[in-house]
Amino acid sequence: MPSEFDLIARHFTRPPRDAARVPLGVGDDCALVAPAAGMQLAISSDMLVEGRHFFAQADPALLGHKCLAVNLSDLAAMGARPLGFTLALALPAADDDWLRAFAGGMLALADAHDCDLIGGDTTRGPLNICITIFGEVPTGQALRRDAARSGDDIWISGTLGDARLALAGYRREIELDAASLQRAGRRMHVPMPRVALGQALRGIAHAAIDISDGLVGDLGHILERSGVGACIDADALPAGPELAAHPSELRRPFALAGGDDYELCFTAPASARESVLAAAAECGTPVTRVGRIDAAPGLRLVDRNGAPLSLQLASFDHFASP
Amino acid sequence: MPSEFDLIARHFTRPPRDAARVPLGVGDDCALVAPAAGMQLAISSDMLVEGRHFFAQADPALLGHKCLAVNLSDLAAMGARPLGFTLALALPAADDDWLRAFAGGMLALADAHDCDLIGGDTTRGPLNICITIFGEVPTGQALRRDAARSGDDIWISGTLGDARLALAGYRREIELDAASLQRAGRRMHVPMPRVALGQALRGIAHAAIDISDGLVGDLGHILERSGVGACIDADALPAGPELAAHPSELRRPFALAGGDDYELCFTAPASARESVLAAAAECGTPVTRVGRIDAAPGLRLVDRNGAPLSLQLASFDHFASP
Repeated sequence: MPSEFDLIARHFTRPPRDAARVPLGVGDDCALVAPAAGMQLAISSDMLVEGRHFFAQADPALLGHKCLAVNLSDLAAMGARPLGFTLALALPAADDDWLRAFAGGMLALADAHDCDLIGGDTTRGPLNICITIFGEVPTGQALRRDAARSGDDIWISGTLGDARLALAGYRREIELDAASLQRAGRRMHVPMPRVALGQALRGIAHAAIDISDGLVGDLGHILERSGVGACIDADALPAGPELAAHPSELRRPFALAGGDDYELCFTAPASARESVLAAAAECGTPVTRVGRIDAAPGLRLVDRNGAPLSLQLASFDHFASP
Repeated sequence: MPSEFDLIARHFTRPPRDAARVPLGVGDDCALVAPAAGMQLAISSDMLVEGRHFFAQADPALLGHKCLAVNLSDLAAMGARPLGFTLALALPAADDDWLRAFAGGMLALADAHDCDLIGGDTTRGPLNICITIFGEVPTGQALRRDAARSGDDIWISGTLGDARLALAGYRREIELDAASLQRAGRRMHVPMPRVALGQALRGIAHAAIDISDGLVGDLGHILERSGVGACIDADALPAGPELAAHPSELRRPFALAGGDDYELCFTAPASARESVLAAAAECGTPVTRVGRIDAAPGLRLVDRNGAPLSLQLASFDHFASP
């Protein structure tokens, strides 16, 4: 069996593409990273565990993609430009085919975002994938959760709920035809982080967050940190193309609290509507206005006629969920 | 059961101590880190798995200490000053007492090194602890593995082998009296990373590495990356106080390839001997000269009389070991 050093070297080690920003990559006690002048580093960690965040028999190439995508999504939500990441990997065995596919999926997405794998760790253990990602953002321009203001519009990128629809299909909570399940499943397995949009919104948006645990829960973090409330039109939420074919009893909860969407939820002043739409068009990313930030605490849901909705919605929580 | 957000908030969240270097800590999509002008960031990740890196019933306070210590040791080996770290934690259950003790042990060591916990992730899963640590080092002054030169002295900080002696005692490979096992065990459970020494060696040492997998294996990385060889006097190695009482048949292999030492192995030109000793004295860390870097590839071992030794030594390897 190859040693851990061989494994790392064979599948993951490549020279950094920009020696000015990453003077030293994989292979020493530490990597060295040099952000450009006037830049801060945005840093985020995510840990993905088999059986909790992905199925035991997950396709390794898709899994490699998704593990990096969820981290890139955190950079997107800060308006940061990707720079590099570390990968720590616990594996039950050193399976060469699995590693090749996993590395392939991960590094293809890394290449698409000019993001170097700069270091990490490999060990034997129950499958666990931990990525820490680094991006650059100009000092003072990060899109923070605590920056929403009363009167701001609330915007959503792309569409919501298809990943949750796929999960319902896999779990047999609902019956989906095979083609629909496959299309929805791609939203679950191959999320596309909104990295370009996040950067384009710098100087335009106030607060931003990425929607990983469901809109209600994640918007809740903005409201709590900003000390504000919000009203959301549940029928204005852009349902994914597969979810859109289902009745509103399914559409509303899956769009509001489905999770695994990896879209951006952001707030911006009403005076910036044209700028938001122009920034989104420049990135080729659709955005939809779905509500408003209020001074009064709490989250209020209404239907398309403005009538209050009282939905029993629980945001996805790794410990509190059954 | 408290939610993951409650857990993180209760045990781990504290405001960053230096808002200039860490403008934004735990609680957003990313933390923000701003290295000072002229500084590069040194970054390292380590993942520790139950049953592989620590015993299932490990004391959580000692475990918290050790997980951060092994990462601080990587910064020490680069000559970097600690700045902050992220913690990703998979736990089989949300045990409040365990988390309090674990956080206590970890944050006490973090405080001792002015190192902020700036972010992370918590999820349910088999116990897995992944830390990514960040330090600052002046541009061009990092102690790299590829910088050893023929003729350099090879130095070791502190002592080697007591952690391996403790492991042998726990495994009943050898019989140790309870007091000796306890003292040796502290070297295994409570390593003290050589953070001050690493920084003091900037501009003096050429190459450096921390000894986590055993001197032979770790020095081997310096030799490989620097394109040089070395000769080590196995009897000059500073054995730990417990190991020192044992015969050389045990002392040599445990000092050469024991692992879990977290001492620094570094090289420096012979002309710098006084500077090395002065830097070490300033930090209160003993250092010992144990060999020499040669142009000829490979690692040669000799005894105190210069006679060649042929020891069958395998460096600790997480995948290749039985």
